[in-house]
Amino acid sequence: MHFQDLIEKKRDGGTLTPEEIEVLVQGIVSGQVPDYQISAWAMAVYFQGMSKEETLNLTIAMSKSGDIMDLSGIQGIPVDKHSTGGVGDKTTLVAIPLAAAAGVPVAKMSGRGLGHTGGTIDKLESIPGFQVEKTLPEVIQQVNRVKAAIISQMGNLVPADKKLYAIRDVTATVDSIPLIASSVMSKKLASGAQGIVLDVKVGRGAFMKSLDQARELAQTMVAIGQGAGRKVVAVLSDMNQPLGRTIGNALEVREAIDTLQGKGPKDLEELSVLLAAHMVHIGGLVGTLEEALLKVKKLLQSGAGFQAFQRMVEAQGGHLDYARPHYGLPRAAEIADVIIPHEGYISAIDALAVGRIVMRLGAGRERLEDQILPEVGVELHKKVGDKVERNDVVATIYARNKNQLDQAAAEIRQAFTLTETPPQPVPLIFDTIT
Amino acid sequence: MHFQDLIEKKRDGGTLTPEEIEVLVQGIVSGQVPDYQISAWAMAVYFQGMSKEETLNLTIAMSKSGDIMDLSGIQGIPVDKHSTGGVGDKTTLVAIPLAAAAGVPVAKMSGRGLGHTGGTIDKLESIPGFQVEKTLPEVIQQVNRVKAAIISQMGNLVPADKKLYAIRDVTATVDSIPLIASSVMSKKLASGAQGIVLDVKVGRGAFMKSLDQARELAQTMVAIGQGAGRKVVAVLSDMNQPLGRTIGNALEVREAIDTLQGKGPKDLEELSVLLAAHMVHIGGLVGTLEEALLKVKKLLQSGAGFQAFQRMVEAQGGHLDYARPHYGLPRAAEIADVIIPHEGYISAIDALAVGRIVMRLGAGRERLEDQILPEVGVELHKKVGDKVERNDVVATIYARNKNQLDQAAAEIRQAFTLTETPPQPVPLIFDTIT
Repeated sequence: MHFQDLIEKKRDGGTLTPEEIEVLVQGIVSGQVPDYQISAWAMAVYFQGMSKEETLNLTIAMSKSGDIMDLSGIQGIPVDKHSTGGVGDKTTLVAIPLAAAAGVPVAKMSGRGLGHTGGTIDKLESIPGFQVEKTLPEVIQQVNRVKAAIISQMGNLVPADKKLYAIRDVTATVDSIPLIASSVMSKKLASGAQGIVLDVKVGRGAFMKSLDQARELAQTMVAIGQGAGRKVVAVLSDMNQPLGRTIGNALEVREAIDTLQGKGPKDLEELSVLLAAHMVHIGGLVGTLEEALLKVKKLLQSGAGFQAFQRMVEAQGGHLDYARPHYGLPRAAEIADVIIPHEGYISAIDALAVGRIVMRLGAGRERLEDQILPEVGVELHKKVGDKVERNDVVATIYARNKNQLDQAAAEIRQAFTLTETPPQPVPLIFDTIT
Repeated sequence: MHFQDLIEKKRDGGTLTPEEIEVLVQGIVSGQVPDYQISAWAMAVYFQGMSKEETLNLTIAMSKSGDIMDLSGIQGIPVDKHSTGGVGDKTTLVAIPLAAAAGVPVAKMSGRGLGHTGGTIDKLESIPGFQVEKTLPEVIQQVNRVKAAIISQMGNLVPADKKLYAIRDVTATVDSIPLIASSVMSKKLASGAQGIVLDVKVGRGAFMKSLDQARELAQTMVAIGQGAGRKVVAVLSDMNQPLGRTIGNALEVREAIDTLQGKGPKDLEELSVLLAAHMVHIGGLVGTLEEALLKVKKLLQSGAGFQAFQRMVEAQGGHLDYARPHYGLPRAAEIADVIIPHEGYISAIDALAVGRIVMRLGAGRERLEDQILPEVGVELHKKVGDKVERNDVVATIYARNKNQLDQAAAEIRQAFTLTETPPQPVPLIFDTIT
């Protein structure tokens, strides 16, 4: 089989057979298929798309291209949670303890941030002593003991995706829904969970800018997961403004702890509770989503979710002091408030802009090799829909260097849009795909 | 400038600026643009096309990417001729001597055959002693003396196209009209001629299968040439059945000589005369195409074209004996006639099939490194529209090995389609683009 015939078939709108997909994926991993053929095929997919079955076959073939996590040693049905990436998105840190408190075993591999979006591993590493690297037996033991573990990627998981993504990243072929879906889902399938709750972000700060795109991506990912025999549900949630009030690693951990103590921002709590409830539901612990929601809300109110968080942090070597206001998390040396000199209603807070500002403060990476500063970030005191009086403080900047404060403040100010009349309320949850 | 931004721009249907095209072409030649980005860009062009100006800019940038032939030492206005490739297409061997006899200076670089299409250089090399390699000063001297030279490519002509074509060839991105047009025309521009006559083949045995495609390619190439300040005309001619009666290197040279002596097949004579007349016309030797046609026909009848051919062959070291029936060309050891056991009218002779049969007999190359057998090929005794009686000989096969004859005969028989009633006459010339 000539690989260029597969490119031509896709170019002409054809559907590759399972055998052809297998040859392609094996060729990508082995290096038999040269990079220039991979990129030409990816561009053909960008224009011609892939059928449902083709996307499923690609995902399954990729998921088997390297190590597969064997979670059979875990008691119960392991459920995973994945976000397509956003700004201020710390739902993992809230939803997983809540699901764990309900009895759902979670062995979650998370990623690091890149660009304007944060990564759960970077957030957890702002906790002094927290270990994100564990062996598989250690993870299984921890999950059986405290129900939850969040670790960085281990083993040689889905090398086909690593290779393919690296090429897509530099050939303008990232923005293809079947390729995005198969990239995400191949890793989820290889991670071994039986249930997967997806949080597909929509809006300025998300990869998917429009609801239609996001819905198509969610539907594609759900179809893949179900086609591969997993229980999958996807929530479409807003990412036009940052989620919650904090953006930056230690700031987000603090806010997650606040939320688990019932004193977090409403949007973060609502989305985290919904995601946890879906995990409880597809984990088979209750019969309906309504029961799951009731159960999770109780676990939040009773503090059981907070306790599950504490147990997980302790199991992974983290040291926090929950009696102190900042819980013993690293604190920024330089702090400055951002004032808006007008009055009005906040109609938008540009999540992309805020994400980039926080990245430049040092909380994220422009390049993979960049160092992370755990303590820096931005705290928003106002969110979309809030009224602002003249000279109100709308945000606080946390930086390492004083000379970053002025520019960051000016940029944060620009990220706010004010109107004279209250804006239309924006929903936090757009849709749920099952 | 990031090259991936250029890919993205093209992917999204944008038009690259002249500066961006320049960066791209320089990057291709220098190796700064990796192959996987070149192929992704080519696939984006496949789907999005290129604007007229963009195609012109690409062609000009490519034409300047290496050596440029300086033909200023040639007396008169040098005119070139190019065919997009066909089966049995020996028009160059007839038209160029005719144009030369009319006083048009021709310094033509030709290619070798690949796949089912033949190449002029392979044909000329079947002439004992014929030298296809010459230095530029030698070419200029020869053209000034005998008006015509046909040589293989010299120098480092259009390295951007060499690189780009090699990648397109293995990434299913050959079939893009702006990329085909810029590939052909960049070489023509770099070859230094002021006038260019294009023969765009249409049909089964041609690269362009449909008249619409061929017309679009012809229009694109003419627009490029004119945009670059050259005189250009394109003829659209039939390539559903082979041109003339012979396919194979020495057989085609023999037929070209026959035609220059007024005893060649009608279709080959008609097309060669038309192409030569266009060369005479755009070379500025006469005022109208009609005058040029009259002039060329006279030169054919008077034997002046044949004499020009003899002078060129002699100038390039070739030895032919025009008194012998095969002119001293190599002759095949094994010869067999092909009989069709039915009667009827020939409605089609599949040029692609015939081209492949002849290639497998050894007249062409499947791979660039394959050796050419000059003496092998096929001679057609019947053409489309002819009536066949039961057991008529329709073709003769010329082979090196006896064991090739049976299979080739069976295949040739299959290439003929017979009908009970005479087929509609097919035009040889579909259109002329100026």
